[in-house]
Amino acid sequence: MEALVSSPSSVHAKAIELGKQALKMTTAAGSGHPTSALSLAHIVVELMYRQMRYDPRDPWNPNSDRLVLSEGHAVPIVYAAYADLGGAVGHDRANPRYLTNDDLANLRELDSVLDGHPNPAEGFPFFDAATGSLGQGLSVAAGLALGARLDGIDKRIFVLIGDGEAREGQVWEAADFIADHRLSSVCAVFSCNGHGQADAVSPQQSPERLAEKLEAFSWDVVTLDGHDPEALSKAFARVGKGDRPLAIVARTVKGWGVASTLGKNFHGKPIPAADLDAALAELDDTAAQFGVVDVDPIEKPTAPASAPAAVARAAIKLPPFADALRKVGKESALQKKKLATRVAYGVALVALGDADDRIVALDGDVSNSTFSNMFAAAHPDRFFECKIAEQNMVSTGAGLSASGKIPFASTFAKFFARAVDQIDMAIISRANLKLVGSHSGISLGADGPSQMSVSDVAYFRSMTRVDDGRGGVACHLFNPSDPICAYRCCELMANIDGLCYLRTHRPDAPFLYPLDEQFSVGGCKKLREGNQLTLVSSGYIMHTVLEAAAQLAAAGVECSVFDAYTLPLDASPILDAARASGGRILTVEDNYAGGLHAELAEAAAKVGDVTVAGMTVSRIPKSAKSANEVFDYVGVGLNQITEQARKLAGN
Amino acid sequence: MEALVSSPSSVHAKAIELGKQALKMTTAAGSGHPTSALSLAHIVVELMYRQMRYDPRDPWNPNSDRLVLSEGHAVPIVYAAYADLGGAVGHDRANPRYLTNDDLANLRELDSVLDGHPNPAEGFPFFDAATGSLGQGLSVAAGLALGARLDGIDKRIFVLIGDGEAREGQVWEAADFIADHRLSSVCAVFSCNGHGQADAVSPQQSPERLAEKLEAFSWDVVTLDGHDPEALSKAFARVGKGDRPLAIVARTVKGWGVASTLGKNFHGKPIPAADLDAALAELDDTAAQFGVVDVDPIEKPTAPASAPAAVARAAIKLPPFADALRKVGKESALQKKKLATRVAYGVALVALGDADDRIVALDGDVSNSTFSNMFAAAHPDRFFECKIAEQNMVSTGAGLSASGKIPFASTFAKFFARAVDQIDMAIISRANLKLVGSHSGISLGADGPSQMSVSDVAYFRSMTRVDDGRGGVACHLFNPSDPICAYRCCELMANIDGLCYLRTHRPDAPFLYPLDEQFSVGGCKKLREGNQLTLVSSGYIMHTVLEAAAQLAAAGVECSVFDAYTLPLDASPILDAARASGGRILTVEDNYAGGLHAELAEAAAKVGDVTVAGMTVSRIPKSAKSANEVFDYVGVGLNQITEQARKLAGN
Repeated sequence: MEALVSSPSSVHAKAIELGKQALKMTTAAGSGHPTSALSLAHIVVELMYRQMRYDPRDPWNPNSDRLVLSEGHAVPIVYAAYADLGGAVGHDRANPRYLTNDDLANLRELDSVLDGHPNPAEGFPFFDAATGSLGQGLSVAAGLALGARLDGIDKRIFVLIGDGEAREGQVWEAADFIADHRLSSVCAVFSCNGHGQADAVSPQQSPERLAEKLEAFSWDVVTLDGHDPEALSKAFARVGKGDRPLAIVARTVKGWGVASTLGKNFHGKPIPAADLDAALAELDDTAAQFGVVDVDPIEKPTAPASAPAAVARAAIKLPPFADALRKVGKESALQKKKLATRVAYGVALVALGDADDRIVALDGDVSNSTFSNMFAAAHPDRFFECKIAEQNMVSTGAGLSASGKIPFASTFAKFFARAVDQIDMAIISRANLKLVGSHSGISLGADGPSQMSVSDVAYFRSMTRVDDGRGGVACHLFNPSDPICAYRCCELMANIDGLCYLRTHRPDAPFLYPLDEQFSVGGCKKLREGNQLTLVSSGYIMHTVLEAAAQLAAAGVECSVFDAYTLPLDASPILDAARASGGRILTVEDNYAGGLHAELAEAAAKVGDVTVAGMTVSRIPKSAKSANEVFDYVGVGLNQITEQARKLAGN
Repeated sequence: MEALVSSPSSVHAKAIELGKQALKMTTAAGSGHPTSALSLAHIVVELMYRQMRYDPRDPWNPNSDRLVLSEGHAVPIVYAAYADLGGAVGHDRANPRYLTNDDLANLRELDSVLDGHPNPAEGFPFFDAATGSLGQGLSVAAGLALGARLDGIDKRIFVLIGDGEAREGQVWEAADFIADHRLSSVCAVFSCNGHGQADAVSPQQSPERLAEKLEAFSWDVVTLDGHDPEALSKAFARVGKGDRPLAIVARTVKGWGVASTLGKNFHGKPIPAADLDAALAELDDTAAQFGVVDVDPIEKPTAPASAPAAVARAAIKLPPFADALRKVGKESALQKKKLATRVAYGVALVALGDADDRIVALDGDVSNSTFSNMFAAAHPDRFFECKIAEQNMVSTGAGLSASGKIPFASTFAKFFARAVDQIDMAIISRANLKLVGSHSGISLGADGPSQMSVSDVAYFRSMTRVDDGRGGVACHLFNPSDPICAYRCCELMANIDGLCYLRTHRPDAPFLYPLDEQFSVGGCKKLREGNQLTLVSSGYIMHTVLEAAAQLAAAGVECSVFDAYTLPLDASPILDAARASGGRILTVEDNYAGGLHAELAEAAAKVGDVTVAGMTVSRIPKSAKSANEVFDYVGVGLNQITEQARKLAGN
């Protein structure tokens, strides 16, 4: 599509009209960032009124061009435009509500869809992902562009990024990724108003530096005046024309049009009510300067053909484990009766991809360790190599989720620590994202602590009882002990609409279950019966716990053993079993505190009739040749477990 | 210093000798990355034998040039060089042990100082920080360079980074920071062997792209053959000569000298024992090709003047709170009897800076929100603006810690989620780093969930009972409820050798304590006496809990209230109080699960004579105008607390 011919005067008029709304709504809210909003006034008008092919009354249309406001704090200007356009809000495409200017007065109210920062989950479907923690939008755009490409949709994704924000390394991870994948449907606009929060931006983020950087990152770059409608219109006409993505480096003015009222570097504060009239009058003066007095109404954006919403599908079913193994040439595991859980993940992922074309996979240059390379071989068009850049991988996954895909993103469990803020934002967005961390815990041994995930369980567990506002919880964690359970956990994850985290492990794990065993969300399994103590564990260290239970039984101490392979956990079967056998629980984990021990202690301490002791990784690990040596070193070794169990069983 | 004239033949000879050691030691260990090690063979020889001004027998000398191996998996080549040089290992400068070639056979053993990835904490003082999670080394180098500048030491910091690793956004955050601060003592060498783990590196990380990127980031750039001793020597001679940092883009060969034995893309696996002789023979052939048969012994590196270790200092003492307030013009708080804990942090930080010149501060463009700007005003030479790049800020802090400084790094609590992997690595390094998260929890209200830290307590708590191997724990968390406690928590933090996390809050908080109240590591305070229920809380929400306790008392339900301002917590006073008053505890927190509730439930469930119920943030938050509205929305509002307390008290 050719860009519409601009009418500079009408763009200025609209920018000023929306600018006034942004000032008024933030003053009414008593907080917000009007000056960043004004920097974007012309860019937003140009995009939302002239460039984007969409119908504001149907933002759900998958054929629409999209806007990602990476500098989320500037959102009032978008809210103002969307209200002016009568954009649809809410959660129901069939029964939308249309935003009006009156709604703007409710910015940041508890019952308003106009959250402090963009958030589709609160009923603002014009956006695809929550933003506001800076530097993530370009990665989300990459995911949206990949999703559109998979679906054969010719849509463009516009991203607005601040100059100060461009300091975030993730922006450059995304720039690399978008160049690698030739996602020329993405257009990134850098708004260079020269001011951060505390001070001016660094010369490293000047328009000149940014343009040079973007060129070095293989982007097509245009530098222009971000308040010049004609220049913007001309630049946007280039989007998607070449095979390189387009970056627009826009010189903008913080608090455009009201600069003298504000003074400089006025960030994150609304205009005091007493000064509002002066600011609005200054905008009128600005309008007069531009000769904007009485303009033609601005044209409405062109809408693409409407497409129906995705049809609800039946649950995704995996084939029998043995069939899935045979399909990928891993049937030797059936004889050996052992397989690493990370390989089971690869087997499951291939089968999920066979079963449903929404399944896509991402990996961070370790697909031969995580075994997502099996999916890459089976479904190459749906595999996205993200290289060593985990932040971008997670936010790109959130973008793919917003496109209706079911993304599985894998790396070493430890390296998801690189992307915690991105995971947080995916959860706020209610992204349907699956994270798979291989080499989890400490069983990888020799590589040492820089490769060991030990805080991951506490972090993910913190969200497992948090209501997501849709009848689910913010996060499900899976930590299977054997490949059969791992395989089925992947099936459970594919059918949960929300964020899931799967821990897989490096070493081969013996089968603990029949091949056709079924597992459930919130479930656990009793692996051994005993009447003196209840042992609870999960993940690879379960095998050490079972060995301990066998030794204890040989010494006359009979323990039950539970596999608590998922959180949140329905603890009642474990508590009931403990009540029936001495009232004592011992948890064993290969992670730091805050996992199973906390889960069961919290459940038990409600009533107080069962005691819970916990063994977790009790010192900072180091390298050792074997998993067992590391287990001993950090206090969760075989002998330490049997000793502790004996003590608790009073034996 | 002029670089030594190279003797290419001797450098080749040494590179081959060390390369053989790297092959042998990884084969012996049964794991490791020999091919990455060989890529660096010449660079490491050039640096460790010719360029660096240091005495391998005294790596503790603060005047020494430093090497940061950002691509930590290549460490065997450094271990081989260090053993050859008889470098000192251990923890005691007065009683070092000198490494020998025999030690190399113990790579990755539990009792070896040769951990799988670099780690000074395991007794390898040649390094300053643990590496192995990629992309962090350049930031550590920035911290070392800042520390040297503060101390007036003319030392150079060399950093080795992989081409695949250069995809990590943090590398570019560090590149910006180093350019901003004109840290021309830093030299970054990018080893471009063209191979990542799973595949070839992207064209975006080619030597050409990297050189162009680095130039766009304002660095001086030399591209050369990384196996050419003369080219390396000439390039290193430029370090520190101009006002720009030097980047060397080195074309290297993965598995240099044994490429035909290995085939291509042989990552993360040692050579099987059966192939070792062939590989060693191929290195001999390579030596013959270079005419290396019988070379002069290579010169030993030039050592700088030796400097003594820092003298142990007395505990850092803060002045009385009222004096500190007056010093910075905040004495009005004494009349109002309230002050935000984040302002109390600023007050404390200025006073700490007055008391000890090792105190330095970093901030990520929000110093006017965290109040670290008070320190910037009082001690401008010791304040480092990191802009919007939290990963770099945390790792730079770890580098400053390795220079003997006591860095306090601040941003919004939520944005430390951006740097979790960097915090993990700082903890593995045993860095003496203090993190201060302002606007913690949900009390900031209107800005919404993208700015709210709700998983932070679970994450940091997971490490609060983990032995750091030095008699301490891996992490201390502080969550003060009032400014007097916040002020004293800063003093406690400054005197703990290790990582600490302080939560501060946006709203003003009334004084709860006398001005001269003292606090302790592991301590808690009883704020109210009651005999029907024990309420436990911390942070800003404590004020709501106290209001609830007052309402309950008015309704005849007498509750004790404890302020559990720090973790790990000695829970016994709280458990004892609960035992004496009905045996029931209710915790209230403004974060997701895994904090105080877990801490007290774990303690109580050991014995089972006290029950614990917990109220945490039970749904994903959204914007609302006031803190109290958000508290209500997520289930920890005033009425919800009183209702829950009544229920538990049976009233």
